[in-house]
Amino acid sequence: MSGSNKKTYSVAVVGATGAVGNEMISILEERKFPVKEVRLLASDRSDGKKLEFSEKNITVKKTDSSSFNEIDIALFSAGASRSKEFAPLAVRSGAIVIDNSSAFRMDPDVPLVVPEVNPHAIARHKGIIANPNCSTIQMVVVLKPIHDAVRIKRIVVSTYQAVSGTGKEAIEELSQQTRDLFNYREVKHQVYPHQISFNCLPQIDIFEENHYTKEEMKMINETKKIIEDDTIAITATAVRVPVFYGHSESVNIETEKKLTADEARELLSDAPGVKLIDNIDALEYPLAIKAAGRDEVFVGRIREDESIEKGLNLWIVSDNIRKGAALNAIQIAEILIGV
Amino acid sequence: MSGSNKKTYSVAVVGATGAVGNEMISILEERKFPVKEVRLLASDRSDGKKLEFSEKNITVKKTDSSSFNEIDIALFSAGASRSKEFAPLAVRSGAIVIDNSSAFRMDPDVPLVVPEVNPHAIARHKGIIANPNCSTIQMVVVLKPIHDAVRIKRIVVSTYQAVSGTGKEAIEELSQQTRDLFNYREVKHQVYPHQISFNCLPQIDIFEENHYTKEEMKMINETKKIIEDDTIAITATAVRVPVFYGHSESVNIETEKKLTADEARELLSDAPGVKLIDNIDALEYPLAIKAAGRDEVFVGRIREDESIEKGLNLWIVSDNIRKGAALNAIQIAEILIGV
Repeated sequence: MSGSNKKTYSVAVVGATGAVGNEMISILEERKFPVKEVRLLASDRSDGKKLEFSEKNITVKKTDSSSFNEIDIALFSAGASRSKEFAPLAVRSGAIVIDNSSAFRMDPDVPLVVPEVNPHAIARHKGIIANPNCSTIQMVVVLKPIHDAVRIKRIVVSTYQAVSGTGKEAIEELSQQTRDLFNYREVKHQVYPHQISFNCLPQIDIFEENHYTKEEMKMINETKKIIEDDTIAITATAVRVPVFYGHSESVNIETEKKLTADEARELLSDAPGVKLIDNIDALEYPLAIKAAGRDEVFVGRIREDESIEKGLNLWIVSDNIRKGAALNAIQIAEILIGV
Repeated sequence: MSGSNKKTYSVAVVGATGAVGNEMISILEERKFPVKEVRLLASDRSDGKKLEFSEKNITVKKTDSSSFNEIDIALFSAGASRSKEFAPLAVRSGAIVIDNSSAFRMDPDVPLVVPEVNPHAIARHKGIIANPNCSTIQMVVVLKPIHDAVRIKRIVVSTYQAVSGTGKEAIEELSQQTRDLFNYREVKHQVYPHQISFNCLPQIDIFEENHYTKEEMKMINETKKIIEDDTIAITATAVRVPVFYGHSESVNIETEKKLTADEARELLSDAPGVKLIDNIDALEYPLAIKAAGRDEVFVGRIREDESIEKGLNLWIVSDNIRKGAALNAIQIAEILIGV
């Protein structure tokens, strides 16, 4: 791909003022991504706002047809409709797009990539590379090494997803509802169809014809595409819980060959991007509040499923904004530039 | 059993000052249980405290060897160790014990009863009848009619359990941690091993040898005993969530005969103790905050599991203090006295 002689790159962040956009900017800086220019783009609403990058204030500009001139890599996280509108335009301007929305994920021409799982898929890109759904990413990082070892036949997953996955307004809604409840004020909801504070919502995203939500179908379809195995049977129930950061998942798998819990722990203690926390004597297991701000996908509570011959239960937790979105996108960018 | 000529009964509530004990007192009144005397018992700590029943103040007494004289029915909810100590004594005094603790649940001589599921088991009692674990009760109320119709081969359940299941101190801990977080104060924990506010804890009760928690094993073992079918294969992951009242459960089942989602909805719309809420067009499904204070077990999000030939996903919610504990115990008492 094109870069400057000094091997630095012009990077655009589309949706820079959002929860994931903010995190992308932090991670570019944190990981010392070789940046020539960082161009921060958002909707008209945020035009003129300033954000910090490497101790400099950068003015946010609205996204338009000239936004991608001279851009090498465009990181999109502004929702599917803005990706559909501007990603092809960015590609025509010569940029490679890494898109965090669902717009292109299931497009056969677009690689859907988790660097620890299918980095090879990046090479097939035609300008756009898709970043998977947050709840899918953390699950496949843990399941891929198991699949390689003993082949996973079936997955039954139930999620416990943080509000930050919805965006900044949802973080504010959970805060506001909680404050209102403690102050005996009326609780209002705008972002979610029901109160999220001190409640669990068994609905993430809209409903599909088959009564599954879009989020549940993303987990089913994206997992097969990333692991590159359509024969894995998957069913999912996606639930929003009153947690700010960190998605948790209760994952039950059935495998073709037997893998004991001890063998699974050994396998996962060494797996890329995975951090095993499974010390029940010390009451240690993955927790959303401890995963927040961290890069790894945490796994614990590994138990043999005694209801079938060859099965395991696992508890998988990760920072949905980092590994579930911003970090995964930047890891893809790092592979692209050969870091 | 013994009762007065006017068919009224002397009822003792052991653990009267706890979350479940409080609810038992309310429900006795609400359902106009034919009470001659309500005797409120607790530990030394609560001796002399006053609680209201039918607009009268009743003094709480400490539980001792004379506590059960003239008592017909003793409702126990003071923990397994106090049940082990005092339930046999109550039985010797002539009372029938309905015990909400785990002390006798798996004792082959003790019926473990959910009135909608196995009321016939009550007749076998030898003085003690056990009330099942809260997360088990709500699950079997929904699954029994399905099992009768198409036989359930396997259950994979993940729970989202409210803090009230732990007791009053846990309700206070969630409140206090939440207030502390919003006031930038240090968050402390005493009841739970980790912060519960804005977090999910994949541990309920202590760990067993096989790495499952006691709560998970209760769901597995009690379900088989209540449904009276040891061939049902069950695996469970029990998780505490920052919700005050109402346990939610993501339940995946595999059945011997096919049951479509529509057939399941029809079956459950008519099942005893069950309230079907499954109108996704109106974004209606069971919610913990709406189940709180209600008697029914709510079920919704019923979907055919496309990962197997004959399977369903269900979302089951109920008030863990009412149907999960106090109400179920009093329903057992009502059957005992023939109401």
